[in-house]
Amino acid sequence: MTVTSFDPRTGRVVGAAEETVAVASVVAAATRAATVLAGTAPGERRGWLEALADAVEEHADELAALADTETALGRARLDAEVAGLAVQLRFYGEVAAEGSYLGATVDSATATAPRLVRVKRPVGAVAVFGAGNFPFRYGLLGHDTGSALAAGCAVVAKAHPAHQLTCGRLAEIATEALAAAGAPAGVFGVVTGLRAGTDLVRSPGIAAVGFTGSQAGGTALWRIANEREQVIPVYAEMGTVNPVVLTPAAAASRLAEVAAGFVGSFTLGSGQFCTKPGLLFAPAGSAAAQAVSAALREAGPSPVMLTEAIAANVRRGLESFVDAGAEVVGHVPGPGGGWSADAAVLAAPIGALKRGSRLLEECFGPVALVVEYADAAELTAGLGELQGSLAGSVFTAGDDDPGAPAVVATLAGQVGRVTVNDWPTGATWTWAQHHGGPWPATSNPAHSSVGAAALDRWVRPVAFQSTPAAALPPGVREAVDPADPWDIPQRIDGVLTRP
Amino acid sequence: MTVTSFDPRTGRVVGAAEETVAVASVVAAATRAATVLAGTAPGERRGWLEALADAVEEHADELAALADTETALGRARLDAEVAGLAVQLRFYGEVAAEGSYLGATVDSATATAPRLVRVKRPVGAVAVFGAGNFPFRYGLLGHDTGSALAAGCAVVAKAHPAHQLTCGRLAEIATEALAAAGAPAGVFGVVTGLRAGTDLVRSPGIAAVGFTGSQAGGTALWRIANEREQVIPVYAEMGTVNPVVLTPAAAASRLAEVAAGFVGSFTLGSGQFCTKPGLLFAPAGSAAAQAVSAALREAGPSPVMLTEAIAANVRRGLESFVDAGAEVVGHVPGPGGGWSADAAVLAAPIGALKRGSRLLEECFGPVALVVEYADAAELTAGLGELQGSLAGSVFTAGDDDPGAPAVVATLAGQVGRVTVNDWPTGATWTWAQHHGGPWPATSNPAHSSVGAAALDRWVRPVAFQSTPAAALPPGVREAVDPADPWDIPQRIDGVLTRP
Repeated sequence: MTVTSFDPRTGRVVGAAEETVAVASVVAAATRAATVLAGTAPGERRGWLEALADAVEEHADELAALADTETALGRARLDAEVAGLAVQLRFYGEVAAEGSYLGATVDSATATAPRLVRVKRPVGAVAVFGAGNFPFRYGLLGHDTGSALAAGCAVVAKAHPAHQLTCGRLAEIATEALAAAGAPAGVFGVVTGLRAGTDLVRSPGIAAVGFTGSQAGGTALWRIANEREQVIPVYAEMGTVNPVVLTPAAAASRLAEVAAGFVGSFTLGSGQFCTKPGLLFAPAGSAAAQAVSAALREAGPSPVMLTEAIAANVRRGLESFVDAGAEVVGHVPGPGGGWSADAAVLAAPIGALKRGSRLLEECFGPVALVVEYADAAELTAGLGELQGSLAGSVFTAGDDDPGAPAVVATLAGQVGRVTVNDWPTGATWTWAQHHGGPWPATSNPAHSSVGAAALDRWVRPVAFQSTPAAALPPGVREAVDPADPWDIPQRIDGVLTRP
Repeated sequence: MTVTSFDPRTGRVVGAAEETVAVASVVAAATRAATVLAGTAPGERRGWLEALADAVEEHADELAALADTETALGRARLDAEVAGLAVQLRFYGEVAAEGSYLGATVDSATATAPRLVRVKRPVGAVAVFGAGNFPFRYGLLGHDTGSALAAGCAVVAKAHPAHQLTCGRLAEIATEALAAAGAPAGVFGVVTGLRAGTDLVRSPGIAAVGFTGSQAGGTALWRIANEREQVIPVYAEMGTVNPVVLTPAAAASRLAEVAAGFVGSFTLGSGQFCTKPGLLFAPAGSAAAQAVSAALREAGPSPVMLTEAIAANVRRGLESFVDAGAEVVGHVPGPGGGWSADAAVLAAPIGALKRGSRLLEECFGPVALVVEYADAAELTAGLGELQGSLAGSVFTAGDDDPGAPAVVATLAGQVGRVTVNDWPTGATWTWAQHHGGPWPATSNPAHSSVGAAALDRWVRPVAFQSTPAAALPPGVREAVDPADPWDIPQRIDGVLTRP
C-alpha cells in the first residue's frame, strides 16, 4: 500500500510513499535506543541536535523546493521555515545543556526525614505527529522531535500525509546526521500511513505522544492512548478560534490599520495557522466588519490550500457559519485550480456566540468572523462563551488605553498566550514562550509545545531516597556531587542555586 | 438522604451526614472566590494557610478523637497525622511565597522577536477527593487542598464516606479559620455523597481534580472528566504494588531483619497505604517467604480495616491470589469483630508474574507476595512485567553492594520513588519529594501529589506578549519590574536569577 502525494496548485500526483507495516520493529529499535539515551548527558545530545541542524541547513534548498511541490506554501515561507528549524533544533540542545529542565533537587537527611534526590528522567520512546501546515518547524523534525531528543527520548515520527516526500527526505537526512554524530541506532524512526500511526500510539513501547494538528486528529489519538492498558500522556496542540479584541479607543484611532492587520493575520498561509485569529470583537457602531471586508478585497485571493480536504472544509465551514446565524460581509474567490478556497469575512450578532454554536469553533482557512459588543460587560460575557484558545489578542490605542487591562485579564483566563498590539500568528521559540492553553487548545493545559518548557513533556520526576551516589543516574550523580555543586541549577535544602 | 458513619472496631453506626444537593451553588461560590484569588499574592495565601494550620492544631485532640471513632487507626497514629497536617499546610504556604512555582520568565524584545513574559496562574476552582486511609494528611485539608490553596485555587472538597463526621468538623474549622484570616468567601467548600462527587467533576466551573485513593475510584473520576465538553486534568494518585528487591548479598547477611521490616511495612495501618510494599523479590534459595512468614506470626494480628468493603476486598484478594497460582505460606487471623481481616504472606513462582495476572495488582490490606529470582536477568524480566508503581525499594548489604545500581536503574524506569534500605511507606513533604509514577500509579506521570511540586498541578502558564506592565497580573507585575528583579526567582533572557 502506498500514500499518494499531490501538488496543491494543480491537484496532480507528484509521488507516493510506502506505508509502514513493521511498526513494531521501528518501536523496538526506539525503545532500545531510549535505554541508551537515559544514560547520556544533555551536552552529548546537544551535539546530536547541532549535527541535525547542520544537516538541515546543508540541504535547505533541496528541502524547501521539495516541500513547495507538496504544500504550495511558496519558497519564501519554506526557506524561512527550514532556516528556523535549524535554529530551533540548536535552541533545544542549549535548553537541555543548561540543565534546569532536570529539576535537580536535593534534601539532606534530617533527624526525621531521609535524604531525597529528585531529578527528571526521559520517559522513553515517544511518538510525534507533526503538523501539515508547517512541514519543517512543526513537522517531522520540528518542536516535538527537537525537544524530545534534547530531553533524552527516542522519537518515532509519523510522516504527514500532506507532505510524504518531504518527510521521506527529512528522515534520510536525519538518520544519516544522527548516526554520523554518534547517536545510537533507533534514536529516530519514521512510520508512514494512517494505520501505522494508530498502531504507533497503541504500541506498548511508546511512553508519550506529541501531536500538532486538528482537534479531530488530536482527540482521536488521545482517545486511543486512553484506551491502552497503560494509559500514556498525549500532548496534542490543536487549532482554536483565537479571539481578538479591539478596544473603543483603538477603533476610534486606528480601525483601518487594525483591519488590514487582521486580514494579513487571518489569511497568512491561507489561514492555515493554529494561531489564526478567527474572531474579532469590535465596539458597536465601529463598522469594523466593513473595514475588514475592504481590507480583504484589497488583499486579494489567498493561495491554494494544503489539501483537497482542507479546501472542502473551508467551503463547508463558511456554509455552517451562515447556518449558525452569520452573514458574509466580504468575499474574495480563491485562485481557482488545485485546492482552491475562497476567503471570507462574516459578521454575527454577539448573542449568537452561545455554547454549542458552530461559530465558537475553528474554521481552518482564510475565514474570520466579526462581532460587535455594546459595552465591557457584553464583551466579557461574549469572551466567556469561547472555548480555550492558544492565543488571544487585544488592540489598543496605546499603553495607557483604559480598556486594555481588563481584556488582558479576561483573555489570560482562557488562552495560553495574550498578545497586545501584536497578531497571534507566529510563535517564537524562546525561554518565555508558551504555546498551549485550556482544552480544546491542548489536551493538557499545563504544557507547552514550543519554547524551553517543551522539554517538560518528555521527562518525569523520580525521587531517590537514601540512595548512594553510585546508584544515582549518570549525569545526575555528578550534578549532585557536593564537590561540584554548580554544574546545573539545583535546589539544595530548599534554596535555589545556579552554576 | 444521609451517609452513615460506622465504628470499624464494632461495625456500629456512630453518626450520619447529609448528602449535598446544591453542588452547583458550592461550585459557584468557589468560582467567584477563584477570581478573587487570581489577584492575590502568594504571601497573602501563606497567611491563610498558617491560620488554617493554627486552627487544626487548636482542635488537634478533638479531631484525632473523632477520627478514631470512624477509622480505628488509633490515637498515636492520628495524633501524629493531625500534627503533620498543620506542618504541611505551612510548608505549602512557604513554597508559594518562595515563588519559583510561578516560573516567571522574561525574554526581552529583539530585532526579530517581541517581549514575552511567562508566568503561571491558578487554574480556578478545583475539586479534591481525599483518601480514606489518611483522614488528615491526605484528607479534606491534606496535600491536595493545601497545595491548591497555596497555588491560588479555590477548593471544593468531597467528604470521604469512611470519615464523614471528621470531614464535617474539619470543614467547620477550616471555614471559620479562613474567614477569620481574610480569605474570600467560597475559597473552601465541601460536598457530601457519591452523587455530589460525580456532579462536582461534571461541573463546568471546576478546572481540575485531585484524587487520592483506589484505582477504581480514580479511574472513574478520570473517565467522567474526559467526557466533559471541556476536558479537565484529573490528578489521581492511585494505589500500586510497590515492589521490593532483596539483593543476594543482603539475603545472605540480613534476611531476618529485612523480613521483619517488610512485615512492619506491609502491615502498617493494616496494609492500608498506597505505598505498601506488596511484592518482595528474593534470591532463589534464600527461604525469604519462610522468614517473612515467621516475622508475620511474631507481629500478630493487624487491627481492623477502615471499612467493611475493604475488609471484604482483602478476603477476596487473598482468594484471587491463590487462584492466580500463589500459595499462602503465612497467615494470621484478624482481631475479630468489626471490619476484621486476616494478614497473610503468599509465595508464587516468578513466572506467574505475567501481564494480566491478578498477582500484578494491588491488594489493599495486610497481604504481600514473595517471589524468588534465579539471577539478575530473571529479576529484571520479573520487574519488567510490573505496572507502574508509586515506589520501589531495594535492600542491600551496604553502599558497595554490587547488585544495587542495576536494580535502582530498573526501578527508576517504573516507579516515582526509589528507596534504598528504606521502606516505602510514608512520604515526607519536602522540596525533593516525588509522590507519583507511571500509570496506574497516577493518571499523569509527570505530576506529584506531595511536596513542593504538588503546586504545579494547580497552575498553568500564560505568556504575555508585548504587554505593558500595567496589564500584567498583580504580583507578577511587580515581580518582573526591572527596578525590583529579586522578588522571586526568575529567568531573564535565558539566565536563571534568584532573590
